[in-house]
Amino acid sequence: EEQSSPAFLNVQQKTINALQLLSAKLRETSVPWHSPRYLGQMNSEILMPSIIGYVTAMLYNPNNCAYEGAPATTPMELEVGKDFCKIIGFDLEKGWGHITNDGTIANMEGLWYARNIKSIPFSIKEVKPELVAGKTDWELANMKICDILDLSDKVQSEWMDIRNHSVRGKGVEGNKLGKWIVPQTKHYSWVKAADLLGIGIENMIDIQVDEKYRMDIDVLEKTINDLIDKKIPILGVVAVIGTTEEGAVDHLDKVVALRDKFEKEKGVSFYIHADAAYGGYARTIFLDEEQEFIPYKTLKTRLVKDGIFPEEVDWPSTDVYNAYKAMADVNSVTIDPHKMGYVPYAAGGIAIRDKRMVQAVSFFAAYVLEQNTKFPELLGSFIIEGSKAGAAAAGVWVAHQIIPLNITGYGRLIGASVYGAYKFYEMIKATAPFKIGDKTIKMEALTEPDFNIVDWAYNIEGNKDMAAMNAFNNKLFAMSAPFGQPILKSDFLTSHTDLAYDDYGDAPYGLAERLGIPKEQWDKEHNIIVLRACLLTPYFMNPCVMETYWDDFMDSMNKKIEKLFKEKELDEIEAIKKADA
Amino acid sequence: EEQSSPAFLNVQQKTINALQLLSAKLRETSVPWHSPRYLGQMNSEILMPSIIGYVTAMLYNPNNCAYEGAPATTPMELEVGKDFCKIIGFDLEKGWGHITNDGTIANMEGLWYARNIKSIPFSIKEVKPELVAGKTDWELANMKICDILDLSDKVQSEWMDIRNHSVRGKGVEGNKLGKWIVPQTKHYSWVKAADLLGIGIENMIDIQVDEKYRMDIDVLEKTINDLIDKKIPILGVVAVIGTTEEGAVDHLDKVVALRDKFEKEKGVSFYIHADAAYGGYARTIFLDEEQEFIPYKTLKTRLVKDGIFPEEVDWPSTDVYNAYKAMADVNSVTIDPHKMGYVPYAAGGIAIRDKRMVQAVSFFAAYVLEQNTKFPELLGSFIIEGSKAGAAAAGVWVAHQIIPLNITGYGRLIGASVYGAYKFYEMIKATAPFKIGDKTIKMEALTEPDFNIVDWAYNIEGNKDMAAMNAFNNKLFAMSAPFGQPILKSDFLTSHTDLAYDDYGDAPYGLAERLGIPKEQWDKEHNIIVLRACLLTPYFMNPCVMETYWDDFMDSMNKKIEKLFKEKELDEIEAIKKADA
Repeated sequence: EEQSSPAFLNVQQKTINALQLLSAKLRETSVPWHSPRYLGQMNSEILMPSIIGYVTAMLYNPNNCAYEGAPATTPMELEVGKDFCKIIGFDLEKGWGHITNDGTIANMEGLWYARNIKSIPFSIKEVKPELVAGKTDWELANMKICDILDLSDKVQSEWMDIRNHSVRGKGVEGNKLGKWIVPQTKHYSWVKAADLLGIGIENMIDIQVDEKYRMDIDVLEKTINDLIDKKIPILGVVAVIGTTEEGAVDHLDKVVALRDKFEKEKGVSFYIHADAAYGGYARTIFLDEEQEFIPYKTLKTRLVKDGIFPEEVDWPSTDVYNAYKAMADVNSVTIDPHKMGYVPYAAGGIAIRDKRMVQAVSFFAAYVLEQNTKFPELLGSFIIEGSKAGAAAAGVWVAHQIIPLNITGYGRLIGASVYGAYKFYEMIKATAPFKIGDKTIKMEALTEPDFNIVDWAYNIEGNKDMAAMNAFNNKLFAMSAPFGQPILKSDFLTSHTDLAYDDYGDAPYGLAERLGIPKEQWDKEHNIIVLRACLLTPYFMNPCVMETYWDDFMDSMNKKIEKLFKEKELDEIEAIKKADA
Repeated sequence: EEQSSPAFLNVQQKTINALQLLSAKLRETSVPWHSPRYLGQMNSEILMPSIIGYVTAMLYNPNNCAYEGAPATTPMELEVGKDFCKIIGFDLEKGWGHITNDGTIANMEGLWYARNIKSIPFSIKEVKPELVAGKTDWELANMKICDILDLSDKVQSEWMDIRNHSVRGKGVEGNKLGKWIVPQTKHYSWVKAADLLGIGIENMIDIQVDEKYRMDIDVLEKTINDLIDKKIPILGVVAVIGTTEEGAVDHLDKVVALRDKFEKEKGVSFYIHADAAYGGYARTIFLDEEQEFIPYKTLKTRLVKDGIFPEEVDWPSTDVYNAYKAMADVNSVTIDPHKMGYVPYAAGGIAIRDKRMVQAVSFFAAYVLEQNTKFPELLGSFIIEGSKAGAAAAGVWVAHQIIPLNITGYGRLIGASVYGAYKFYEMIKATAPFKIGDKTIKMEALTEPDFNIVDWAYNIEGNKDMAAMNAFNNKLFAMSAPFGQPILKSDFLTSHTDLAYDDYGDAPYGLAERLGIPKEQWDKEHNIIVLRACLLTPYFMNPCVMETYWDDFMDSMNKKIEKLFKEKELDEIEAIKKADA
């Protein structure tokens, strides 16, 4: 009776209308990520079992903030946290991890740990001075993280008092804790983090990257030495495993080695966070069935033997290999399932090497977490977020149940994606300048990919004007953008990025040079526009798909260039050149 | 062929196994929120169209961080942001809002705005001193938010420089910005926020609540006067609209009036944030079809006429009415769709009164947001979070499409929930002490609900021991908890909370007193355990459901008490009494 009432029928019709409208809007503008026509942002087809897992759990609407609200999915989240530790190489007994909304929150949590823990020695000096007797402020600022945690174990009965005297209680007081060091290629979430956490952006130092877009270790060392000379402490160093714009992998091993060297030689220590939001899951490529990190030579053999790469592929470089290996040696790691874990949004993640760190940010002492490993009554009290979708944990958990966290599972999947990028780069490199109408077009890649992103740009032979070249690539992007036009109009969609001197120093000039731009033109513009493809798709592993795709890609871009020429859109670019001259 | 390969079949079987395991775990332990057997945390049945909307969008996996990644759902999120402004009463042209992961992140964002904006005057003093010439530091710390924003408009060309000199650039420097004032009943996310944002927990002041668990305005005024006497600025005041434990609604109108008075009389101003994470959506009860706030008398008539409340219900009080009205006058508001919006996790929310505030926390100047109202290219640059599920926005958007944001829609739905709580409270109040075996049991509610939470406790007549009474209620909770036992074992599931002197002062003594506990016993324990029911379910609006349910509830709890008596579980409690004596 109720179901035939006008009120019910009205709401039913409104529901149908709303859902149809939603569906129409999604269809009209959304990019079908699974299609290789789209090689842009960090998106791809996601794992169907993970979607089903998410939906299944959502019907119960669990909230992982408190165990009471999510008796099934809270343990799954902690299990996933352990999985993060497995991937990273942290000791499963000592490490801890959980799902975050995204990499941004995970990065903020990393800085939160660093900031609060590094302030504990000063706090102990106030509450239990006898424990740090004779130590100068400089020495307190440079205590090793493990030593701070060991010392904290000794003051558990005064812990609340000590923590209240730390940054957590007193607030940030100027830049006493020192500088937070990041590579120029850092994600912009680090800027937000430095602001949000009260550190201040000017207390964050950007380190110049090298021509492969990796943090320059010599510059890092010099920067640290300069700070030591000025008696400014180093709060921590971030290394990026898979930069957002270039997929570059920082020399994390060398950062760790530097810290060890400074500890030994100068009594200077700092926190290390690996921002592997993007590249984290790729560590599975390096792990065997026993979760052991595979020796380099064995790995190269195995990648071929397992059919992950054809023999001619020379990946990983020892640089990349060593960096991934060193993830096990840092204090905390951002690792996002919703990127290379191929699961639906929102599922970022963080893992820490030593779970005793939680007591610096949580309501509770470390042993509370320990006691609660089975059922953490209030997960929300150990992390930044409060209410959080248990369904997200279920989605990741299901994926991890099905796909092994080693070379036979995620390693194979991500390996296929890396192979696609490698091949895409090789093919750009092998493409000689080609004719369109009466003009010769040059195409060059930014750099050999450490991971699965390829950036590239075009120039018209003979053009030596940086601004004109940027305008040309900008126009090509506009014709390839997944917005501002019906997405079916273009049969190749991509993203773009803007590499400016302010962010990268002279690193991007190499690409401009290879495209025939003189140095003085670079110096004038200090900015280069490149097209950017994150190749998350594993389907390019199939040589037929790759070849067909490559031809279609070349064809699509060439048609766009042709169209630009025909429609005299280049007149505008010529005008730029004239204005420049 | 591929689908019959052993590898494919193996993965298929693993998928089935994983999903079956997931389903089993969910079924075994998850609470069916829709059942009135469960009246515990803030959970209830959620809106089916919203679930479908979420799932539909998830299949496209949009990421609302950047417009490029979510051309359909980013505009939906901004539309929902406008809806928040509609509910709150903010000017739609001037206000702005967006979805957050949860109320915790929204609260942090509120504090972020307050902290950064309040530091701008000091920064202007450094960069453009002529604009604040003659102003003392005290005057700078006490500039009105709207005056700071007007002044900021005048320095847009130097904006980056000014912002770099603010807290955002320099970091927090001690407690220069003053104290952040919250009621004792604040959610614990405020403690996290004070820590995370570098303010420091000791710079947060808790205000004593009154016997109705609302911030005591006299104490607030005295506290502010004391701070003024000591020349300590007030960074901001938080009022809670629907406290987590009691559903209490703070006198927001009086907080606003106090600020206006202090501005006029003492030149002292502060930021106001309304934490309406829980109660925010209930403002729809007060809005007519034209989104106008309904006059009190008209509202009372309409609530009855529209069939939302029966005539005998005396809700809202003028206190609650005035508080809700005043939401339009604050600087920012936390308002969570995944609570009283009846949508799936994770969907919190925040709205701000003046969108010019974003320039204090974002990469961009305010006009960039203005230019981007249609397509904010990078939503992630205006907010704390980065990657975020576009599906969450779709879920909320669909709900808002179907259910009007006024008394005819959400107002009616939430009104039914408030009615259920009101009735539940009335029935507890009307229940005379009753016999179980040879003992008489007393049942008392904590306080008349401002919103839809009812807390209550039991005592055995004659027991004057606070610890014994707490043990009794703890045992009853253990038998009613949605964990630690098969959930089908109990036909009434609820939550509980712990009201301690440290958090509430003497406010909770009233309940203990009504249950026959002498003051000295309260003074000894300073802690009372109560059962806690968030009555989100709208089904109690139906008198038959309510009556049947009430009988079942009484029956269930009485059986538990009987069981305690039979199993001599009370011996333990007797031991506590003896030990106390």
